[in-house]
Amino acid sequence: MKHTVTAEHKSEMAFDIDVLGYNVRVDAHKEVGGNGEGPPPKPLMLASLVGCTGMDVVSMLGKMKIEYDDFKVTAEGELTEEHPKKYFKIHLRYIFKGKNIPYDKVEHAVKLSQEKYCGVAAVYKQAIELTHIIEITK
Amino acid sequence: MKHTVTAEHKSEMAFDIDVLGYNVRVDAHKEVGGNGEGPPPKPLMLASLVGCTGMDVVSMLGKMKIEYDDFKVTAEGELTEEHPKKYFKIHLRYIFKGKNIPYDKVEHAVKLSQEKYCGVAAVYKQAIELTHIIEITK
Repeated sequence: MKHTVTAEHKSEMAFDIDVLGYNVRVDAHKEVGGNGEGPPPKPLMLASLVGCTGMDVVSMLGKMKIEYDDFKVTAEGELTEEHPKKYFKIHLRYIFKGKNIPYDKVEHAVKLSQEKYCGVAAVYKQAIELTHIIEITK
Repeated sequence: MKHTVTAEHKSEMAFDIDVLGYNVRVDAHKEVGGNGEGPPPKPLMLASLVGCTGMDVVSMLGKMKIEYDDFKVTAEGELTEEHPKKYFKIHLRYIFKGKNIPYDKVEHAVKLSQEKYCGVAAVYKQAIELTHIIEITK
């Protein structure tokens, strides 16, 4: 299978990117010649990762009938100082809120995502140090 | 420097992702349990790449005072059949339209982006076969 995306240059640093039929506008901040009309492109790498692994975990916990009130995933990417400025470390936090959430089942779902299902993590970990933590609060 | 993004689970497979202050909603297609309220997360990897290298090229051609009518960048990512389904090949097309666009200068800008500036390409090429072509039409 193939995915194709197209970025069309709009003005200065802004591009409209057609992502399988959905438009995502990216832009640079004002200090670097843009108008801040959208996110800069590099952190979309992190968005791709949190979305991918987040959906995996939601899907698996759903199959296990595990309920929770809130779920979020954050990714903190650390950038090199030198060009090309790239992420060399990404730390993921899987943050749950709810009563009686079984840690071991959440851990199992996260592990399956990281090791078996998430194609974004699979690519990144060949080039980036990828770590994660699970946090559950009531 | 660090970048942090946060994906908040909204409903079923949908997440709102805060990407440095800009919201990007991702969702799964209906066939896989979502409602199609946004792009799926994996092709955001491609969006990140085309945005990053596109901005590099625009910025460098601007400094060289090179004018063009249109510019777009496409990325075609080929996915493995097996889990984790991941991109193993990405082909980029830099497509320009305009009169008197010097191929050698465009090639130089693309090369600098690919080899020196684009931190997204720098990560991907450690894990993925990355190729590109430049197309200029009047």
